[in-house]
Formats: sequence, C-alpha cells, structure tokens
Amino acid sequence: MSLSDLLGYAAALLTTSAFVPQVVQTPRTRDTRAISLGMYLLFSAGVALWWIYGILLAAWPIILANGITLLLALVVLGYKLTESQRL
Amino acid sequence: MSLSDLLGYAAALLTTSAFVPQVVQTPRTRDTRAISLGMYLLFSAGVALWWIYGILLAAWPIILANGITLLLALVVLGYKLTESQRL
Repeated sequence: MSLSDLLGYAAALLTTSAFVPQVVQTPRTRDTRAISLGMYLLFSAGVALWWIYGILLAAWPIILANGITLLLALVVLGYKLTESQRL
Repeated sequence: MSLSDLLGYAAALLTTSAFVPQVVQTPRTRDTRAISLGMYLLFSAGVALWWIYGILLAAWPIILANGITLLLALVVLGYKLTESQRL
C-alpha cells in the first residue's frame, strides 16, 4: 500500500470515528444547546451525497466511511431536533 | 462534468460549509459544553491528514475543501479547549 493510500485510510478512520465521542456524550447529557442545528443539517446532507457518490463510483472505502459517519451524525441531529421538547 | 463529479463537488461544498454555522454560533454564545472535545480533536486530526493526502495527490479539490474545513474546525476546537477558563 502506498503512503498516500495509508494516509487516506488513516484520515477516513479519524474523521468517521470522530463522531463516536459526540454520540456517546449527547445521549448521556441530553445537552445539545451549544451544537449548531445548521451544522448538522448541512453536514448530514453532505455526507449523504458523499455516500451516493461512493455508490456511483463503486468505491467501498467512500461508501463505508460515509455510511457510518451519516448514521452517527443523524443520531446527533435527532437529539438536536428534539431539543426544544426537552428544555 | 459527469453526474458523479457534480455530486462530489456538491458533497464537498456541504460538508465544508457545514462548519460555518457552528463557527458563527460558538463565538457568539461562548457555550461549548454540549460539544465533544474528543470529536473535535479526532476530526481536526483526520481533516489535517486528508489535507496532506490531497497535497501528496496534488488534488486541489481535496486540498481546498479540507484546508477550509480544518481552519473552521480549529476555531471550534480552540473555543472548546479554553472552555474551563470561561466557566
């Protein structure tokens, strides 16, 4: 595997797993006030497009990384969207 | 431009611009409690690797999108890291 391939896989692993600590923290604290709704709406839409892009290219690393990131981001978005009902 | 290229650019535009509303909200409210430190540490490291990956591949869309995303994520991370001094 080339250095650039290795870097790409490490980058994908980091940017995808990054959402795990947020998905652990948010359900535990149920605090989403400091989290921007606009950010999670735009980010989830963008990651969904990356996922479709991966499918069109039949590129499994893109499909897998963005599929997992999308699920994690949607959990945070779901908590943010129901915030007003909890306050 | 092919459909997949168009999708890729739209996806990059969304996932990069997603951080703008967070970078607007955080300095205004100075509230970062609901934001996961681990998320922004992992995410910033990952985006930095994507940026180096783009440089190795001389791929300008990857360099630009991740360069901008890194700067935006570092602003949020900076506020999160100084949170305890503000509480």
